[in-house]
Amino acid sequence: MKRIGVVDTMFARVDLGSIARRALGESGTGFRVDRRTVPGIKDLPMACHALFDEGADLCLALGMPGRAEYDRTCAHEASTALQAVALRAGRPIVECFVFETEADGDRALERLARARAEAHARNAYAMLFRPRDLAARAGSGRRQGFADAGPLRRRRPAGSGA
Amino acid sequence: MKRIGVVDTMFARVDLGSIARRALGESGTGFRVDRRTVPGIKDLPMACHALFDEGADLCLALGMPGRAEYDRTCAHEASTALQAVALRAGRPIVECFVFETEADGDRALERLARARAEAHARNAYAMLFRPRDLAARAGSGRRQGFADAGPLRRRRPAGSGA
Amino acid sequence: MKRIGVVDTMFARVDLGSIARRALGESGTGFRVDRRTVPGIKDLPMACHALFDEGADLCLALGMPGRAEYDRTCAHEASTALQAVALRAGRPIVECFVFETEADGDRALERLARARAEAHARNAYAMLFRPRDLAARAGSGRRQGFADAGPLRRRRPAGSGA
Amino acid sequence: MKRIGVVDTMFARVDLGSIARRALGESGTGFRVDRRTVPGIKDLPMACHALFDEGADLCLALGMPGRAEYDRTCAHEASTALQAVALRAGRPIVECFVFETEADGDRALERLARARAEAHARNAYAMLFRPRDLAARAGSGRRQGFADAGPLRRRRPAGSGA
Amino acid sequence: MKRIGVVDTMFARVDLGSIARRALGESGTGFRVDRRTVPGIKDLPMACHALFDEGADLCLALGMPGRAEYDRTCAHEASTALQAVALRAGRPIVECFVFETEADGDRALERLARARAEAHARNAYAMLFRPRDLAARAGSGRRQGFADAGPLRRRRPAGSGA
Repeated sequence: MKRIGVVDTMFARVDLGSIARRALGESGTGFRVDRRTVPGIKDLPMACHALFDEGADLCLALGMPGRAEYDRTCAHEASTALQAVALRAGRPIVECFVFETEADGDRALERLARARAEAHARNAYAMLFRPRDLAARAGSGRRQGFADAGPLRRRRPAGSGA
Repeated sequence: MKRIGVVDTMFARVDLGSIARRALGESGTGFRVDRRTVPGIKDLPMACHALFDEGADLCLALGMPGRAEYDRTCAHEASTALQAVALRAGRPIVECFVFETEADGDRALERLARARAEAHARNAYAMLFRPRDLAARAGSGRRQGFADAGPLRRRRPAGSGA
Repeated sequence: MKRIGVVDTMFARVDLGSIARRALGESGTGFRVDRRTVPGIKDLPMACHALFDEGADLCLALGMPGRAEYDRTCAHEASTALQAVALRAGRPIVECFVFETEADGDRALERLARARAEAHARNAYAMLFRPRDLAARAGSGRRQGFADAGPLRRRRPAGSGA
Repeated sequence: MKRIGVVDTMFARVDLGSIARRALGESGTGFRVDRRTVPGIKDLPMACHALFDEGADLCLALGMPGRAEYDRTCAHEASTALQAVALRAGRPIVECFVFETEADGDRALERLARARAEAHARNAYAMLFRPRDLAARAGSGRRQGFADAGPLRRRRPAGSGA
Repeated sequence: MKRIGVVDTMFARVDLGSIARRALGESGTGFRVDRRTVPGIKDLPMACHALFDEGADLCLALGMPGRAEYDRTCAHEASTALQAVALRAGRPIVECFVFETEADGDRALERLARARAEAHARNAYAMLFRPRDLAARAGSGRRQGFADAGPLRRRRPAGSGA
C-alpha cells in the first residue's frame, strides 16, 4: 500500500486538496491519502517534509499564489524549498500552483484550478503506478489545466513511408 | 509543554515580537515562548536556528523590509534561508514579513503590521495544537493582515440541491 | 559498462528523449541508456536523483519550457534543483532546455530542439568517454543547436610567424 | 575569549575591515579578531567558512558591490552563500554590504560605508555579548549607515493612560 | 605541493584555461595545475567537484556567458552551484566570468577576457600562497580586467598630520 501526501492551503480560493484527492481516487487503487492544510504556499515544503517522515511515497503540493508581484516571489521561494525537501527525502513532490493572473474572472479561474489539480493528481498517480503511461506521452506537448499544446510534428504511423 | 520561538528585528518599525507573543497567549496554552531580537531580516534565519537548537518546536520570524528594491532582494534572501533552516531542523518556521510599500501612511502600515503579526501567530498556534482548524479552512481564501479574499465559489449548504 | 540516464517530459513538444538516445548510440559504445519520462521540467531533478540511485554515471535532462514569463521561472527552479541533485550524487547532469521563444515557427523550433538534443547527447558521451575531445575545443565558441560562434581570434598555425 | 572573524575585499573602495575592527574594539572586550581579505564579495563565503573552521564564533563579512546591474546579481549570490555557510557552521554571519549607488559622490559614499561598517560591528558585538541590548530596541526602526527610521508610533510612557 | 584545478568551457570564445594556466605559472611555484574543459558554464560546478575529489586545493572556474538574457540566468545558476560545490568541499572556487556584453567588438572583448583571466589567476595564487598580499590591498578598489577603481579617499602617508 503506497501513501500519497496531499497538502493545500487556506490562502487558496479553491479547495484544491479535495479535488486532488477525488481525482486520485478515480485514477486507481493501491494507495492511501494523507492530507494536510497549511496557511500559505511557503508552509507547503515543511508539511511535505513531515508527510515524508510519516512514510509518504510522493507528495502533491497545491497552492494559489495571489496577484501581486510579491506573490510570484513567494511562489518561487516555495518552489525552491519544495525541490530541497524532495531531494532530502529522496521522493518526488508534484507541485500544482495556479496563479490568480492566469485566468480572467472567478469562474474561469475556478475551472482552471480544478482542471489543473485533477491533471496533476493523475500525473502523480501515474508516476507511482504507471510510469510507462508517461513514457508513452514523451514530447507530446501535454498541459495541465489548459488544452494540450500537442507535438510540433504529427507522428507518422509506422511504415507510412513519409 | 511545547516551545515557540519568536524572533523579530530592530529594523522593523513596529514591535512585532510583542504583538505576536500577545496573540499567541490569547490563542491558548500548552507552550512557552522564547524570544530573540536581531538587527535585520537577514539575521532571522540563524536566530531561528539557535532557537531550534535550544528546543523550539516552531519559530515565528517577523520582519519589516524597507521601501527600496534592494530591500525586496534582502527579504528574498532571508526567506530562502529561513526555508533552509526549517528543513535542517525538521520543524516549521512561520514567516511574517510586512513590506513598507504595502500600505499608505504610518497609521495604515502600523495597523497592517499588527493585524498580520496577530494572524500569523494564530496560524502558528493552530499548526502546533489545532491542525484540524486549518483543514476546515482549506481553499477558503484566507489572508493575513488584509481582508480575506474568500473562496471563488460559495460553498453550498449540504443538500441544497443546487 | 557505463550507464547514462535520459529523462524527458510530456510537456515538451518534441520527443527529445528518443533523439538523445539515438545520438548517444551514434556516438559510440560502452554504455547503456536508462530512460524516464516525467510530466514537466520541475519533475526532472527527482527523476535524475532516482536514476543516480539506480547507478547512472551521468544524466541527460531534456525539456522545453513554454512561452510565458512564468515558464522561465520554472526553468530556473528546475535548473537550480538539477545542480543540487548532481552535487548530492557527485555525478554530472547535462541539462538540455529548448525555450519556445528561441525560434520562430514550429519547423524552426523543431529543428532547433532536435539539433540541441543531439549536440548535448554528443557532449554527454564525450564527458564520459572522451574528455580530451572537449579539451581540444576549449574556448572555441561551440554552441548547441545554433551555429558555433567560433573563437574571437583565429588560431594561427604553429610557426606561422604572425 | 570569543573570536570574531572579519573579512573584507580588495574590490571595496573603503578599508571596511579596519573600520569594523576599530568599532569592535571600541564596543568592549572579551574577544579577539581574526581578519582576512579576499578579492571580491563572492570570495567572502568561503573565507568565513575557513574562519569558522579555525574557531570563529561570528563572522562579519564586508563588501562594496559596484554600480552595474551584474554587481547586484553578484551581491545576491554572495549573500545566498553567506547564509549557507552560516547554517553549515551553526554560527551567524553579519553581512555588511554598501552599494556604490547608495550615495552621490565619493565623500558621501565613504561616510556611508564608514557609518554602516561601524553600526554592523556594534551589532555583531551586541549579538555575542549583549543580546538584551538588541531586545530593548525591537521594532524601533534602526538603520545602519543612514539615520534611523524610528518606530511608526511613539511608545507611550507606562501608565500614561492614552 | 598544492594543486590548482583549472576548468574552462568549449562555449567560451577565448581559451581562458590556457591563459589562466600561464598566469599561474608566472605567479610562482609550489603547485601543479589539473585542467578540465566542459561544454558550458553550467557544467563547471561538477567539474570542480571532481577536481576537489581528486585533491585540488582551489579551483579556478572560467566562462564566457553569451549575450542573451537567458545567458545571464545560466551564469547565475552556475554561480550559485559553484558556491555550493565550494562549500561542500570546504575549499574555494575563484570564479572568472566574462560577459559578451561587457565590451564592444571582438578585439576589446578578447583583451578584457585575457586580462580578467590573468588577474583572477594571480588572485588565486595569492589566496593559496600569499594571503598577506591580499590583506595589504584591502579596500583599495581593485578590479579584474578593467582599470582599478582605486580607493575613495587617498591614504595619507603615516605621520602626515593631515
